[in-house]
Amino acid sequence: MTTYSLEVIGTIRSELKRREDAPLFYDEGAPNAYLEILPQYTDALHRMRVDDEIIVVIWLHRASRDVLQVHPRGNRSNPLTGVFSTRSPDRPNPLGLHRTKVLEIGPGGLQIGPIEAIDGTPVVDIKPVVGSDDH
Amino acid sequence: MTTYSLEVIGTIRSELKRREDAPLFYDEGAPNAYLEILPQYTDALHRMRVDDEIIVVIWLHRASRDVLQVHPRGNRSNPLTGVFSTRSPDRPNPLGLHRTKVLEIGPGGLQIGPIEAIDGTPVVDIKPVVGSDDH
Repeated sequence: MTTYSLEVIGTIRSELKRREDAPLFYDEGAPNAYLEILPQYTDALHRMRVDDEIIVVIWLHRASRDVLQVHPRGNRSNPLTGVFSTRSPDRPNPLGLHRTKVLEIGPGGLQIGPIEAIDGTPVVDIKPVVGSDDH
Repeated sequence: MTTYSLEVIGTIRSELKRREDAPLFYDEGAPNAYLEILPQYTDALHRMRVDDEIIVVIWLHRASRDVLQVHPRGNRSNPLTGVFSTRSPDRPNPLGLHRTKVLEIGPGGLQIGPIEAIDGTPVVDIKPVVGSDDH
């Protein structure tokens, strides 16, 4: 089996402290959060701008990686579905994609929001939303 | 430094053989491709349907992971920009996101397209496009 090594480039700092809280906040509107970037990666933020639309790629480090099928949204009345057709955090590579906006830019990270990711979530990449900018 | 292990779940089979060919095809419209899924992960395709819009998450295994700033699109007249504000394949974690459509579903993979990814590219996740489906 081929594997690659993913390096953590930053961490989400949020008032959302537990995975169970996320659905509640999702209904009510997710909070803003701080994306703390490790010092060795801050040069990769150069020329990022307030109001940029970005995709924050996270690693769901508490997910179960051996789950291949789930009942979507944890509801047993939903038929068992392959995880590649769902947004389940439990999947072989528990990557999560969060589309959000840059609110403030500091020397060590970004204020972003809204975003559903919980406090302490590792971040592995940041990408501009395709078509939102001419970078 | 915290690292996680990413497992390859499949491979792109495409007529696009070289990275240099991709921009040409991009202008002309990218080709369709076959996404071959490793046998131990095919159960995760259950209930995927033709015409589903998906995001294929690839690992750009030939990218340079120590690059933090680039001239966008390789054009030196574009100012040096942090890779987190660009779609450069060269970045700390060379993940690529390709939005595409399911054209056919076989026992060992998916016919998908159009997609710019080159032949042999490792695939690490497949996700439904948010809002495109009620999964």
